[in-house]
Amino acid sequence: MTDSKPLVGIVMGSDSDWPVMRGAAEALTEFGVPFEADVVSAHRMPHEMISYGSEAAGRGLKAIIAGAGGAAHLPGMLASVTTLPVIGVPVPLKYLDGMDSLLSIVQMPAGVPVATVAVGAARNAGLLAVRQLAAHDQRLAERMTAFQEELREQAHAKGERLRREVADGGRTMGFGR
Amino acid sequence: MTDSKPLVGIVMGSDSDWPVMRGAAEALTEFGVPFEADVVSAHRMPHEMISYGSEAAGRGLKAIIAGAGGAAHLPGMLASVTTLPVIGVPVPLKYLDGMDSLLSIVQMPAGVPVATVAVGAARNAGLLAVRQLAAHDQRLAERMTAFQEELREQAHAKGERLRREVADGGRTMGFGR
Amino acid sequence: MTDSKPLVGIVMGSDSDWPVMRGAAEALTEFGVPFEADVVSAHRMPHEMISYGSEAAGRGLKAIIAGAGGAAHLPGMLASVTTLPVIGVPVPLKYLDGMDSLLSIVQMPAGVPVATVAVGAARNAGLLAVRQLAAHDQRLAERMTAFQEELREQAHAKGERLRREVADGGRTMGFGR
Amino acid sequence: MTDSKPLVGIVMGSDSDWPVMRGAAEALTEFGVPFEADVVSAHRMPHEMISYGSEAAGRGLKAIIAGAGGAAHLPGMLASVTTLPVIGVPVPLKYLDGMDSLLSIVQMPAGVPVATVAVGAARNAGLLAVRQLAAHDQRLAERMTAFQEELREQAHAKGERLRREVADGGRTMGFGR
Amino acid sequence: MTDSKPLVGIVMGSDSDWPVMRGAAEALTEFGVPFEADVVSAHRMPHEMISYGSEAAGRGLKAIIAGAGGAAHLPGMLASVTTLPVIGVPVPLKYLDGMDSLLSIVQMPAGVPVATVAVGAARNAGLLAVRQLAAHDQRLAERMTAFQEELREQAHAKGERLRREVADGGRTMGFGR
Amino acid sequence: MTDSKPLVGIVMGSDSDWPVMRGAAEALTEFGVPFEADVVSAHRMPHEMISYGSEAAGRGLKAIIAGAGGAAHLPGMLASVTTLPVIGVPVPLKYLDGMDSLLSIVQMPAGVPVATVAVGAARNAGLLAVRQLAAHDQRLAERMTAFQEELREQAHAKGERLRREVADGGRTMGFGR
Amino acid sequence: MTDSKPLVGIVMGSDSDWPVMRGAAEALTEFGVPFEADVVSAHRMPHEMISYGSEAAGRGLKAIIAGAGGAAHLPGMLASVTTLPVIGVPVPLKYLDGMDSLLSIVQMPAGVPVATVAVGAARNAGLLAVRQLAAHDQRLAERMTAFQEELREQAHAKGERLRREVADGGRTMGFGR
Amino acid sequence: MTDSKPLVGIVMGSDSDWPVMRGAAEALTEFGVPFEADVVSAHRMPHEMISYGSEAAGRGLKAIIAGAGGAAHLPGMLASVTTLPVIGVPVPLKYLDGMDSLLSIVQMPAGVPVATVAVGAARNAGLLAVRQLAAHDQRLAERMTAFQEELREQAHAKGERLRREVADGGRTMGFGR
Repeated sequence: MTDSKPLVGIVMGSDSDWPVMRGAAEALTEFGVPFEADVVSAHRMPHEMISYGSEAAGRGLKAIIAGAGGAAHLPGMLASVTTLPVIGVPVPLKYLDGMDSLLSIVQMPAGVPVATVAVGAARNAGLLAVRQLAAHDQRLAERMTAFQEELREQAHAKGERLRREVADGGRTMGFGR
Repeated sequence: MTDSKPLVGIVMGSDSDWPVMRGAAEALTEFGVPFEADVVSAHRMPHEMISYGSEAAGRGLKAIIAGAGGAAHLPGMLASVTTLPVIGVPVPLKYLDGMDSLLSIVQMPAGVPVATVAVGAARNAGLLAVRQLAAHDQRLAERMTAFQEELREQAHAKGERLRREVADGGRTMGFGR
Repeated sequence: MTDSKPLVGIVMGSDSDWPVMRGAAEALTEFGVPFEADVVSAHRMPHEMISYGSEAAGRGLKAIIAGAGGAAHLPGMLASVTTLPVIGVPVPLKYLDGMDSLLSIVQMPAGVPVATVAVGAARNAGLLAVRQLAAHDQRLAERMTAFQEELREQAHAKGERLRREVADGGRTMGFGR
Repeated sequence: MTDSKPLVGIVMGSDSDWPVMRGAAEALTEFGVPFEADVVSAHRMPHEMISYGSEAAGRGLKAIIAGAGGAAHLPGMLASVTTLPVIGVPVPLKYLDGMDSLLSIVQMPAGVPVATVAVGAARNAGLLAVRQLAAHDQRLAERMTAFQEELREQAHAKGERLRREVADGGRTMGFGR
Repeated sequence: MTDSKPLVGIVMGSDSDWPVMRGAAEALTEFGVPFEADVVSAHRMPHEMISYGSEAAGRGLKAIIAGAGGAAHLPGMLASVTTLPVIGVPVPLKYLDGMDSLLSIVQMPAGVPVATVAVGAARNAGLLAVRQLAAHDQRLAERMTAFQEELREQAHAKGERLRREVADGGRTMGFGR
Repeated sequence: MTDSKPLVGIVMGSDSDWPVMRGAAEALTEFGVPFEADVVSAHRMPHEMISYGSEAAGRGLKAIIAGAGGAAHLPGMLASVTTLPVIGVPVPLKYLDGMDSLLSIVQMPAGVPVATVAVGAARNAGLLAVRQLAAHDQRLAERMTAFQEELREQAHAKGERLRREVADGGRTMGFGR
Repeated sequence: MTDSKPLVGIVMGSDSDWPVMRGAAEALTEFGVPFEADVVSAHRMPHEMISYGSEAAGRGLKAIIAGAGGAAHLPGMLASVTTLPVIGVPVPLKYLDGMDSLLSIVQMPAGVPVATVAVGAARNAGLLAVRQLAAHDQRLAERMTAFQEELREQAHAKGERLRREVADGGRTMGFGR
Repeated sequence: MTDSKPLVGIVMGSDSDWPVMRGAAEALTEFGVPFEADVVSAHRMPHEMISYGSEAAGRGLKAIIAGAGGAAHLPGMLASVTTLPVIGVPVPLKYLDGMDSLLSIVQMPAGVPVATVAVGAARNAGLLAVRQLAAHDQRLAERMTAFQEELREQAHAKGERLRREVADGGRTMGFGR
């Protein structure tokens, strides 16, 4: 997958964000979208961060997914040096449940938007990148439709199991203990 | 502008959201991106809302911008019935400064992302849609580069004025009263 | 209990909400109110969700209890397609302690109310449904009175035990260690 | 309307809450549901408050709507002395945007639910009471259906006006200034 | 201690609050202030709660310490039926870190104050009751002075230990690992 | 009133807090409790602040009411140098609605309590001081009972007026417009 | 003042921040500390922002004061490209009372600190810069001591005026109306 | 290191804050900056706290780092009795994730600034003190530059490892399980 020329860049301030950010990689892998992943820190390597953003479009990327926590500046700074859509993932830290990360990413000033997803929701960041590509790629749009259908079917199956459980007096799922 | 086949749909739950949401329309107009605007209420016309979302991609839209306030369900519900990227604008209501709108839009469950922008930031929603299109449209990417350059120049001009003011003892801008 | 025609529908976006939502089922069971339970996801099966809401009153339901977390759209969307009272249970997710769920459910726009209970308080949702039915069912109202009397007696018993403990120097309950 | 035996009691801690709470009265009036309105303060007249709650069901009320602000104890205290469903309206005070009112009303302990609506949403409290009655009153259910249809039509009309405006270059609504 | 006629009543909505509330009992015990402890639930035994408050001053109590969590109504309701100072302890529940408890207790309307202490700070509630008594009891005031002196000395001792540690290269306390 | 030896000290960090804090003075005046008022700033005159607290009990004060905003340190610092009960009034500043003031006052560490009232609630601080005195002063306790009775009667009168209004079709108070 | 070689740089993202940020300039002026002021936007001129930070120490600056609002990245980004202490001023925007600005500035990751002051507190940012310089400049330290003495005297004068007012029955300041 | 005359004082209200505050000591040690550490409690030893602050500059300290939690008064009180820059570390307590500590420290009134760092970020407090010293100490500034370079290199190394992992199919870091 990652051998093809990447269409999406997944970046984060530290590899300690990878356990959260890998959700984006997994989503892109499921949809067959080639990507790259890298550590690009706004605060520890600002020059490289600016280079990364400035060159992203020229290298063929169509979107950047950036995860950061606390005073999370990476997504917004990348957005300021690229014309690509930047998707921001608020990574939750030990305190404050990611509220600081969320506000630091989403509350961008007029002129420089960041497409923000839920706290810790790197998988959705990946799916959002897929949707952006799918708007210009019929095959990918069909895969997204199929993916949504699968979600629907899984929900149906869960509903059936729950209905059976409850009818059954809740024995399997522990209802009625 | 709006005579061409629209590429972006701007929808909101009520026309009372228009004073906020028109910022999106203005940004798209500045970039020459054809759009449509409509009232599509998740709570007052759920069937039409679902139709709107389901048919959006087929009608040629490449993105949907949805604004809503309070228990803001429009962006997320649209995202669940389209494969297009949905950009959510948290519209602030009389109380809570848009925190309810923001959390209701951004905290989507795995599988159904909404690209959320800042509270009241419809202009940035429009610019985000432009970026998504520009990733596949070189001419638009160049316009975005030019737009960013303009922001830079305006900031420079403001800096020059401020420096002059301060050197001047702050007389014009009121410094040193 | 669940063999009779259900009067209350308990729905949730995923069976992972069941450990919280079963509290509603238990309360209804205690009061002998027949109910059904199902997975109905606003985001994963929007069409079925709308059907569920639209048909609920016709199938004889008198109330819907809907649990959801994060950008919790299920209770509000159901309320928009039924005339029944919808009771919303904010399910807490891993982050934010259910504040996102609470605001996404309770802050509904004018015209479409959701009767919201405390974060994670599915048992109270069940008891609220019982109260709604009891307003039109004398036997159920008497059971509710008896239930409240029981709560009172349990509180009395706890008070007596605590008073004894404290008089006793707190030996049993660990006071005075 | 208010000559018939009231089915709903609207109570509040002070007549200064009336500008908010009258929204409940208006909704009930629109649906032809007889109601009473009174000042019943948990903190200033606790004995009368308890009497009000204890006697409400016996007097024929089917629901109580209680509005309160700050450390808002009225809805929860009434719920503890009646078997009726109590609908709580968080009235916003000068500071904190009603967050204190909301949490004081919605976060009730197990056993004693309050059906909470949005901050300041007395109109929705009235509509929720109508829904509870409508679950047992076919004529009222039909009125609610008609009301929802009206909301839908108003939203349609707003959409049409907005579409016309935008097509028109936004002259009337100020777009394109 | 508790054989003498109690001067302070410690009450809580459930004995599950005792692990928090016992801190108040311990503080009073340390100062030799006789107290009583009881379960008095605003929501489960409202009539007894009102009796408790109404009779407290007549029975010789000089202050009431009331702990409650969530939509915490006990302290405020007691304050409405007694002339005694009521000290409220916000008991933290599973979610929201006690913010709901704090706001429900502290944000009382004009006319009916509750003396609120920190989330979970029952020990400080006990010490506050001691201060109130000590304002009219010279011997108790001297004990409070001695207690404050002890706190001072403990802090000094801790400082000395820390200074030694750091001078020592932090070996004992783990500094410099 | 203020000629007698003061029993309560009302202090604040700046005279700009007086419009809020005067509520305490008014309440004490109503109950005939002699008081003094002064500017005592923890941050601008720390030595005098410590002297004020240290000497308060010796000068005959029975309680200190301290108002402060933002990083509000005055109430807690006074509590650390007196054995008197200190009542803290969170004064709201231009931003944050007094949440910073509230948390800075109420969240005191173990050993040093501050009796905190609602944001801006200086009147209640005065009434709390009266309650503390009334616990040791039968005449004052009777005045407090009378005061509570008055509150009750005012609430009754408001209820009567509201009932008349509503019966009347809401003409006077604007209902039914 | 500003003719001398500046020791402190005051920067902000836009001249619209000047009404807040001028407080820093005024404080520095009062202490005779030469400064410069400029518009340096992290998002609109990222390259110049990085140059500004990188060259600041070399140009003789001893501290940078940076103000920004919303997703406020300027202070943290400057801190990442200079060794100077950076003082961050959270500028409040229209919504959220500066909470987003505060968290975006203060919650910096390990390695790159920003010295954050209160929301909107540019004056204190100026005074903090003065303190940093004063630690190495005896004359400035004496001025700071004098400044603190002045604050003390002003507070005293306010206290005297308030005491007179209250003794006077509050006629001048409106007490006792 | 700590044998030389200390330049920085690290103080905290209790030695239970040491596990957080030692981060400051470690940072200063890494940069060879002599420091002292002590327990100085605003609430338990107010007189010594004031002495500590008053004498700090005279003893040769150039900065004070003060950590405190909850109603955190230590940093602000020290700032009021010294001309030195005071750096405040909000220590998180069991509840509220340090929000109370942060607001109690950062929201200082005009005239008395505290340089606040992130919740629990004592290491950054140490680094901020180093930056303040480095502004007047070329050798230290060079060390800070080297330190920043090291951070950059570590981030690079992490990026390389992550890129290899992902290219490798994520086997080592668990990607693609």
